[in-house]
Amino acid sequence: MDTAVLAEMLEQVRATTPLVHCITNYVTVNDCANALLACGGSPIMADEEEDAVAITGICGGLALNIGTLNKRTVATMHAAGKRAAELGHPILLDPVGAGASPLRTETAAALVDELPLAVVRGNMSEIKAIAGTAASTRGVDANPDDAVTEDNLAASAAFVRALAAKLGCVVAVTGAIDVVADAERAFAVRNGDAVMGKITGTGCMLSCVTAAYVTANPDRPLEAAVAAVAGWGLAGEVARSRMGALDGNGSFRTYLLDAAYNLDAAQLAAGARVEAI
Amino acid sequence: MDTAVLAEMLEQVRATTPLVHCITNYVTVNDCANALLACGGSPIMADEEEDAVAITGICGGLALNIGTLNKRTVATMHAAGKRAAELGHPILLDPVGAGASPLRTETAAALVDELPLAVVRGNMSEIKAIAGTAASTRGVDANPDDAVTEDNLAASAAFVRALAAKLGCVVAVTGAIDVVADAERAFAVRNGDAVMGKITGTGCMLSCVTAAYVTANPDRPLEAAVAAVAGWGLAGEVARSRMGALDGNGSFRTYLLDAAYNLDAAQLAAGARVEAI
Amino acid sequence: MDTAVLAEMLEQVRATTPLVHCITNYVTVNDCANALLACGGSPIMADEEEDAVAITGICGGLALNIGTLNKRTVATMHAAGKRAAELGHPILLDPVGAGASPLRTETAAALVDELPLAVVRGNMSEIKAIAGTAASTRGVDANPDDAVTEDNLAASAAFVRALAAKLGCVVAVTGAIDVVADAERAFAVRNGDAVMGKITGTGCMLSCVTAAYVTANPDRPLEAAVAAVAGWGLAGEVARSRMGALDGNGSFRTYLLDAAYNLDAAQLAAGARVEAI
Repeated sequence: MDTAVLAEMLEQVRATTPLVHCITNYVTVNDCANALLACGGSPIMADEEEDAVAITGICGGLALNIGTLNKRTVATMHAAGKRAAELGHPILLDPVGAGASPLRTETAAALVDELPLAVVRGNMSEIKAIAGTAASTRGVDANPDDAVTEDNLAASAAFVRALAAKLGCVVAVTGAIDVVADAERAFAVRNGDAVMGKITGTGCMLSCVTAAYVTANPDRPLEAAVAAVAGWGLAGEVARSRMGALDGNGSFRTYLLDAAYNLDAAQLAAGARVEAI
Repeated sequence: MDTAVLAEMLEQVRATTPLVHCITNYVTVNDCANALLACGGSPIMADEEEDAVAITGICGGLALNIGTLNKRTVATMHAAGKRAAELGHPILLDPVGAGASPLRTETAAALVDELPLAVVRGNMSEIKAIAGTAASTRGVDANPDDAVTEDNLAASAAFVRALAAKLGCVVAVTGAIDVVADAERAFAVRNGDAVMGKITGTGCMLSCVTAAYVTANPDRPLEAAVAAVAGWGLAGEVARSRMGALDGNGSFRTYLLDAAYNLDAAQLAAGARVEAI
Repeated sequence: MDTAVLAEMLEQVRATTPLVHCITNYVTVNDCANALLACGGSPIMADEEEDAVAITGICGGLALNIGTLNKRTVATMHAAGKRAAELGHPILLDPVGAGASPLRTETAAALVDELPLAVVRGNMSEIKAIAGTAASTRGVDANPDDAVTEDNLAASAAFVRALAAKLGCVVAVTGAIDVVADAERAFAVRNGDAVMGKITGTGCMLSCVTAAYVTANPDRPLEAAVAAVAGWGLAGEVARSRMGALDGNGSFRTYLLDAAYNLDAAQLAAGARVEAI
């Protein structure tokens, strides 16, 4: 993918300030809101069905995240999703913990079945749970056995492309190597840093940022998702490079938001490590 | 307003450590708690009706914030509000997103109708929704058409004074220029920085801080609210002045709490830009 | 207690990455997750009964925190607690605000009665509420009259030991001087810094960290709890030492996570101030 395309995606976010409705877990919701602001979008959160449907109507995109789901909020996700679909808004699903509990697996499956998703973003264990091919997950982290590696990259790309074709949307699998694909094309993204796994919510934040990118670039969801994933990884690299001897995951979290906030088109074009696979 | 009065308000908060019960949204609740601690107050949060009524009884003030409201917490707000009213505790309402959805607009209206509020604090779009004169809002941010400017300052002051008279409380409208008024007097506050809009929750945090100021100074709610608003804006200015080239909204959020924590009476008296209008 | 034992406890956490299921309040939940990651554990949060029971099954330990409890989550705590008990997982209870409202006091009492707890951790007012000897609490902070001091240290130790014997678990009372005891042995821990009380959630975070320590060291819950308490206090001291003139509770919060993240066995062994009492 031409890195100029990634830069365009970012500039479109900055130019349009996409308003994204997030129905998400209470663990990382504050970071999600600040990540959306950092990337150039604007967040709003509602989870009571009546309220969420109305709020969906004034937004441009919808991000659904099933961490800390409950029966009330699951019903809200379906109702808000239907409203977003009627309005033609892009919908992103982050199936946090799919595979880790029946309720999460079933909720993710039901949302995938019912809604015309634009993007599904998760770790490989969650994505396998959605594909119905999961072995087991370790809570909200991916099973190490599921990792995308240089050795299984071609097979991983084929798997993600096939799932994208089945779901009719972009699928973004993040990990040490990220794979982002639609039915026809797949890309490996090699940005990021291992410390991103030492704070909670990097995945949740990326999902919200991806929703903003797709909302700002509705005709190019694959390019938008690749740009979001590469940019977020790049922000992680910048954040890591700022860490001093006394810094840990507290400072890293702050630096990550800072780097996302300061990320510009030239930096993304120069730093993105994206390869067609 | 004599800046010495503002300093008195702050010193009274530091001297009395007002305990403020906050029923608030889960997006910014952690920052609200830390902002209360930073300003010299003490936070406690409860939202189950039975629990919230009991907790209200051991506190000095109550802050109600309708972001991420649901039917259970709306009922709790009414019950806790009634209890606070019986006890003569100051009650602050932050009508987050009033005008953005019917449930929020109606909930704000019902709370305004039922409770003897001490302060309502919101952006101009939310305040217009409460006044029944709203055009439209853009989610949780104010509609740019609603901005208080030097050109409409006198009209804005008249509007806020009139609403304060109607509601029988202090009304604080925050934005690039803040307007704080009761039925008789209105003040413009010109502290603050645009980066405050690039983190989530500056409004929610200010509402909790204002509740602490009014709780500590129950006989002078207007002076207390002006001091809280000016002090918070000043903290935003200090936070902005600390930002280096690599800093973004992550660091700004930290610096804002830091500045609120270190704000003292002399600094507030010297830095507050308050004008009777 | 030999400081080498404390170091062993820490190393066991780092070596095993205990997965801790936390059912906790929405005020400090993000900091709890990051504190677990900082200490070397891994967090997962669920609070819908069906989901929480399943998630409990894939974890190693369970932390229950009753801040912002509601009837739904209280039922979930009982169900998840029963499942954890069946599996032999260590269960920690943090009775936030016990004594401050009937619902909290009764919920804490019911959990203590029903579940085979490994650790109860709270401030002295909360612990007295559990023991049925409470006078009054000031919200979520301890009543100053309840403080453990050099003067009442022996009596405090006897009280905590007696409660530990009654409950059949470790009891950790934190404050300016911490007391950690089982039925036979009690230790005073003199690590920590007063600024820890100026951010929200230091107690909640310590509870989650303690759950990780006990999960990683299931046969030595007393040693594990002492190590967690001393290490957390030490992290507070390191955080305080980093504070510059402009820093406040915002930076302190970041530095505290950083210090917990960087804490190593040698540092803990050298810095822990633990005394048998």
